[in-house]
Amino acid sequence: MKIKLEKLEVQTKKDQELVDITPEIERVVKESRVKNGVVNIMTMHTSSGILVTEGLPCLEMDVLNKLEELAPDQGNYFHNRYLDIDGRLGFNAGAHLRAIISGYNAFFPIENGKIVKGSRQRVYFAEFDGPLARTYCVQVIGE
Amino acid sequence: MKIKLEKLEVQTKKDQELVDITPEIERVVKESRVKNGVVNIMTMHTSSGILVTEGLPCLEMDVLNKLEELAPDQGNYFHNRYLDIDGRLGFNAGAHLRAIISGYNAFFPIENGKIVKGSRQRVYFAEFDGPLARTYCVQVIGE
Amino acid sequence: MKIKLEKLEVQTKKDQELVDITPEIERVVKESRVKNGVVNIMTMHTSSGILVTEGLPCLEMDVLNKLEELAPDQGNYFHNRYLDIDGRLGFNAGAHLRAIISGYNAFFPIENGKIVKGSRQRVYFAEFDGPLARTYCVQVIGE
Repeated sequence: MKIKLEKLEVQTKKDQELVDITPEIERVVKESRVKNGVVNIMTMHTSSGILVTEGLPCLEMDVLNKLEELAPDQGNYFHNRYLDIDGRLGFNAGAHLRAIISGYNAFFPIENGKIVKGSRQRVYFAEFDGPLARTYCVQVIGE
Repeated sequence: MKIKLEKLEVQTKKDQELVDITPEIERVVKESRVKNGVVNIMTMHTSSGILVTEGLPCLEMDVLNKLEELAPDQGNYFHNRYLDIDGRLGFNAGAHLRAIISGYNAFFPIENGKIVKGSRQRVYFAEFDGPLARTYCVQVIGE
Repeated sequence: MKIKLEKLEVQTKKDQELVDITPEIERVVKESRVKNGVVNIMTMHTSSGILVTEGLPCLEMDVLNKLEELAPDQGNYFHNRYLDIDGRLGFNAGAHLRAIISGYNAFFPIENGKIVKGSRQRVYFAEFDGPLARTYCVQVIGE
């Protein structure tokens, strides 16, 4: 069994942003030389997500707008209070809630060295509280 | 390590529909002869989902209604414009957004050749933009 | 390949509650002696979920409130009718719908015997229809 884990950095540039990380995932899978198995993708931050949708800029905006509509930054949140852990006011409850809705991870099968996915499926790092330097994991397991 | 991947077709019949694919998943697991491992299920389309809920027709309707309420077909979407990729107007932003909320994949452990799941858990292919011929993957990994 | 599956019980105490199960998951991973692989976590009930967020009581309340806002107990649900399977009125459509939004499972990579996760990521059993005695699975696969 081959197992390869890579931690990747992404510098987001906006408050809310979808960054297409599909090429990075394809590179890790290729370099792993795993022929058949699975690739797991996971963000390491609770105010960001990993999601899969079609690679269209118009749709990326619709996804961000919908998540902001369902869980806006402004709200009557308990998290909007002084937090010892951060030494400041909590202010990003909306970002955490958007991450719950979007999900924080994804996986795809690998067959004959290629990721098995629909022709329109793209994997996105979803920034809900940027801009920030972020880390996500790509893990390949197989043989 | 045994790895088996099967691509399955489902012909949906309605605009929005939950199709119980649990029997197909059980069949693939059985035929794989994997005793212990995991089964991964994934739709290959970004306007459909995979979700897990109780197998009751009343609840299936509630799930579809709730997703339509949270992300309706009609909305002020950027995706509602001419798309070169399709040679027509984008019109299914709501379907893509429902897929983000529902999720596109699922997994279950396998133990002694059986899927480990709660007695009421059923796995559904969730059509959000039908009727269409759809493809989903079932992958079994284990030994 | 090592595969270990444990079914764990959690007694929830409230109608809606987030229970941090991270220590239990860490224990199962440690006892599995898997050095590199993946840990899968799954609830076995369709009116509960598994979700990942930051471990702050204020945020836990915000998550539960948001899910209740998006899918309230009271609603015009088809599930609110007599169910032969239960011998009583269905009453928890909202709980099932919150479970769809939150998701029912999670996974994390394992590297050098440790779960790979962000410093603020905690794994929660999400009760949406308690108080109840609940079961969830933790499965470790690796070598």
